[in-house]
Amino acid sequence: MAQAIVKQTEDYARWYTDVVQKAELADYSPVKGCMVIRPYGFGLWENMRDGLDRRFKETGHVNAYFPMLIPESFMHREAEHVEGFSPELAVVTHGGGKKLEEPLVIRPTSETIIWDMYRKWIQSHRDLPLLINQWANVVRWEMRTRLFLRTTEFLWQEGHTAHATAEEAEEETLRMLDVYADFAETDMAVPVTKGLKTEQEKFAGAVRTYCIESLMGDRKALQCGTSHNLGQNFARAFDVTFQNEQGERELVWATSWGVSTRLVGAIVMAHGDDDGLVLPPRLAPIQTVIVPIYKTDEEKTATVAESHRVAGLLKDAGLRVHVDDRDNFKPGWKYAEWELKGVPLRLEIGPKDLEKRSVFTARRDVREKAPLPVDGVAAGVAEKLETIQQAMFDRAVAFRAENTRRVDTWDEFKEVLEAEGGFLQAHWDGTDATETAIQEETKATIRCIPLDDDVEEGACVYSGKPSKRRVLFAKAY
Amino acid sequence: MAQAIVKQTEDYARWYTDVVQKAELADYSPVKGCMVIRPYGFGLWENMRDGLDRRFKETGHVNAYFPMLIPESFMHREAEHVEGFSPELAVVTHGGGKKLEEPLVIRPTSETIIWDMYRKWIQSHRDLPLLINQWANVVRWEMRTRLFLRTTEFLWQEGHTAHATAEEAEEETLRMLDVYADFAETDMAVPVTKGLKTEQEKFAGAVRTYCIESLMGDRKALQCGTSHNLGQNFARAFDVTFQNEQGERELVWATSWGVSTRLVGAIVMAHGDDDGLVLPPRLAPIQTVIVPIYKTDEEKTATVAESHRVAGLLKDAGLRVHVDDRDNFKPGWKYAEWELKGVPLRLEIGPKDLEKRSVFTARRDVREKAPLPVDGVAAGVAEKLETIQQAMFDRAVAFRAENTRRVDTWDEFKEVLEAEGGFLQAHWDGTDATETAIQEETKATIRCIPLDDDVEEGACVYSGKPSKRRVLFAKAY
Repeated sequence: MAQAIVKQTEDYARWYTDVVQKAELADYSPVKGCMVIRPYGFGLWENMRDGLDRRFKETGHVNAYFPMLIPESFMHREAEHVEGFSPELAVVTHGGGKKLEEPLVIRPTSETIIWDMYRKWIQSHRDLPLLINQWANVVRWEMRTRLFLRTTEFLWQEGHTAHATAEEAEEETLRMLDVYADFAETDMAVPVTKGLKTEQEKFAGAVRTYCIESLMGDRKALQCGTSHNLGQNFARAFDVTFQNEQGERELVWATSWGVSTRLVGAIVMAHGDDDGLVLPPRLAPIQTVIVPIYKTDEEKTATVAESHRVAGLLKDAGLRVHVDDRDNFKPGWKYAEWELKGVPLRLEIGPKDLEKRSVFTARRDVREKAPLPVDGVAAGVAEKLETIQQAMFDRAVAFRAENTRRVDTWDEFKEVLEAEGGFLQAHWDGTDATETAIQEETKATIRCIPLDDDVEEGACVYSGKPSKRRVLFAKAY
Repeated sequence: MAQAIVKQTEDYARWYTDVVQKAELADYSPVKGCMVIRPYGFGLWENMRDGLDRRFKETGHVNAYFPMLIPESFMHREAEHVEGFSPELAVVTHGGGKKLEEPLVIRPTSETIIWDMYRKWIQSHRDLPLLINQWANVVRWEMRTRLFLRTTEFLWQEGHTAHATAEEAEEETLRMLDVYADFAETDMAVPVTKGLKTEQEKFAGAVRTYCIESLMGDRKALQCGTSHNLGQNFARAFDVTFQNEQGERELVWATSWGVSTRLVGAIVMAHGDDDGLVLPPRLAPIQTVIVPIYKTDEEKTATVAESHRVAGLLKDAGLRVHVDDRDNFKPGWKYAEWELKGVPLRLEIGPKDLEKRSVFTARRDVREKAPLPVDGVAAGVAEKLETIQQAMFDRAVAFRAENTRRVDTWDEFKEVLEAEGGFLQAHWDGTDATETAIQEETKATIRCIPLDDDVEEGACVYSGKPSKRRVLFAKAY
C-alpha cells in the first residue's frame, strides 16, 4: 500500500483505476476485458447482493438458475433482441473435443432461455404471476473495458417475471425500479433520478425501459439499473400462452430488470476522494477499523488487548470490525491504508485513551475526529455510522443539485456541458434525429425522461420545435 | 402435482428423476446436458450455500471472483491437469463477431487462472496463507448426464489456498475435509466416510485427494466432496514463489477443495422415499407447511386466520413456514403435494383444533401424527424439527451400517456386491492393476482409503497379496 494515487483533478480516469486496484477491489486478468474481483471488492459486492436479494424476496420474488449456454438460434427469435446483442456474443463452437452441431452462445442476458422454459411452466392464469430472479455471470464482448464499469464478463442479477395483464407487468416494472432506487439511495448513499429511456436507448426487445441515473464525481452520469416492460414480445417469440379465467388462451406479459457489479464503480466514483475510497457504512466490508497505539511493549499488550475487547463489543452488536494489530507498520501508515480502502470509521486506542476510558474516533468522510467513551462504545459507533451514511447521501444530493442546470438555448447547452458537465435539464422535440444530432455534436445523451411531475411546455433546445417537458442530458459512462 | 412417481424398488433411476422433476427441484433445459434449477431446488441450494459459506468464513476464508474464460494455453501448463480436463472442455472460438487469436475455454475448475493471479499477489511470507473461495458455475462436457448428479454446467464452490509450508497445506486440506463432513452430517443429515482417493482416482494435478463418501438409498455410493493437496504443482506451473523469513525464494504450497449442486442429489437419494423428497429441516426451504381444514365458509375464515396467526409466531421464531390456503385443492391433495416436496413437518388446523387450542402435527420422515398445544407452538415446532433432523441422521447411519460389510474372498466380494450392494470393506494390494481389474469385472471402484484407525493386516481380496488395511469398495454414481 502507501502507493500514491493520482489526484482526481489531474486525471479522473486514472484516479478511478488507481483506487480500484490499490484498494484491492479488483485487478486486471490475463483474459482481455475480464477482471478479477478481489476479496475486498467481493465483500462489498456480497453486501450489495444481500441488500438487493432481501428486497427482491420482500417483494415476492424467488431465485432460480438457468443454463449459461444458449442455442444460437434462440437469440434470433426476437428481432430487436438479436440485432441488439449479436455484435457482443461469445460463441462456443466446440465441446468435449468435437465441433457442435449448433453453436452455443454464452448468455449476454437470459430472456430467451428463460422464456423457452416459461412455455413449459405456464399453462393457466393460476401459474401467474411468475416472479423469478437469477444471480449470474454474463458475457458481452466489449472493445473498450473499464474495471467494474464495463467488462466482458460481469456479475449481475436479472429478474424475469410473467404476468396475466399489461397493467400488472407495468406495475412490476415500476415496482422494481423503486426497489433499485431505494437500494441505491438507502444502502449505496447514491441519489438517483428515475426515468424512462428514449426509444433509441431502450433495451433490445423491450416496449419500455425505465432506469435510474446517478451523477459521478467527475460530473458524468452513470446508469445504475434498468427495468424493462417487455410487453408480449418474448411470449410471442417463444409461444408462451396461458388460459385465462374465461378459458381463452392469451399471450403472457413480461418484465425483466437488472443491476450489476457496475454498481461497485458507482460507489467508487460517487463518494471517493483523492485519498481513495469512501464506503457507505451499510455496505462497507469493514465498517470500523481499530488501530492500537503504543510505544513500549507494555503499552502494546494493553492497547492490543483493549482493541480486541472493543472489537468484540462491536461484533456482538452486529457491526463489521477489524483490528489492525500488525506490528510491522506504524499507525500513520495504517491510517493511510484504511483511508484508501474507505473504511467509514477508525478507532484509535492508545495508553491515554485507556486511562480516560475512551477511544479516539476518526470519520473517513469528513475527517472529523472526536473521543468516544468506551462505556456504550457499540451504541456510539453505530450512531456514528448512521450519521456517516446520512451525511454521505446528503452530500451526494447537494452535489447533484449543484451540478444540475436548466438550459434553454443551444449555446448555453454546449457551454455548460463543456465548462461544468453535470445534468442538463433541457427541452427536446422527441425525435430520434435530434437526439442523435445532439449526441454527435456534444457526446451528451438523453439519460432519461424523468418520472417526476416537473412538467412544462417549451421549445427543443436544439430544433426549437415544441416540447412538453424537459429531459435529462449528460455525458455518461 | 398429484402425478404418480414410480416406486424406488421398481426403477430407482426413474424414481430419482421423477422426484427431482415433480417436486420442482429442477427441469431439463433445451441445452444438452444442462439443467434449470427451479425456485424450490434453488431455495434448497441457497440454504446449503449459506451453511457452507458460514463455515468457510469461520475458518478464515474470504470469497472472490475470477474470470470464467481461461486462455486454452493455461490448461497445458500442468501436465496431469490438461490430461484430466482436456476431454471435457467447452471452447469459445469467436467473440464480438470475430475469430479469437487464442481460443478460450470455459473453466472446468479454476486452478490455472487463479494461480496465474497468485503469481502477482504473492511476494512475501507475509502474503501467506492466502485463503480464497469462489462460488461459481463451471462447465465439463459430459456425455451421460443426470439432473444434479452429473450435468455439463453446474454450480459449485472452489477453495484455492496458498501456504508457506507443506505441513500447512496438508492441515488446510484436512481442515476443509472436516468442514465438508460436518456440513454433510449436521445440515444434510447424511453420514459420510472420510478417506483418501487412490492414485488413479485423485484430482488431475493433485498430490493427494481426500474425499467424503456417502451411501444412497439404492446402496450405491456418492462422492460428496473432495479436498486436494496440490503440493507445489501449480506454483511450479505458474511460477509462484515467495520470499521466506530468511530472505530466500521458495515455491508456494497449494490446496483446492470443492462441493457442488451434486449435493442436492445426495439429499434426494439419501432420504427420499416412494412418496417423494424428505428434506432435512436445517436445509428445507419450507420447514413447516400449515394446512387449514374447513367445510363451511365460517370455518374457513376461522381456520385460515388461525393458520396465518400461527405462521406469524413461527416466522418470528426464525422458522421457514408456508400457509397453503388455496381453496381449489382439497386437504388430501395438499398433503400429497407437500409430502412429495419433502416438507419436514405439516400442521393441520381445523375447527376442532381451534376449540382445543391445539394444532395437529404430521412428521414427513416417520409419518408420526400428534397434537401440539397452540400455546408455545413455536418452541414445540422447533423441537420437533430438531427431532426430525436427528432421526434422519440416525436412520441414515443405521442404513449405512446395515449396508457396510467386511468381505474376505473374491467370491464373497462379487456375491455381496451383486446381491446387496453397499460398501464393501476389503483388503487391496495397493496396485493400479488390481484396482482396474476389480472395476472391470464388477464395476465397483475404490471409493476411498478411510482415514479411520481401523487398521489390520490381511490379504488382497483379488490378488491375495499382502495388504495393510481394508479400503472401501462400492458401485458409485
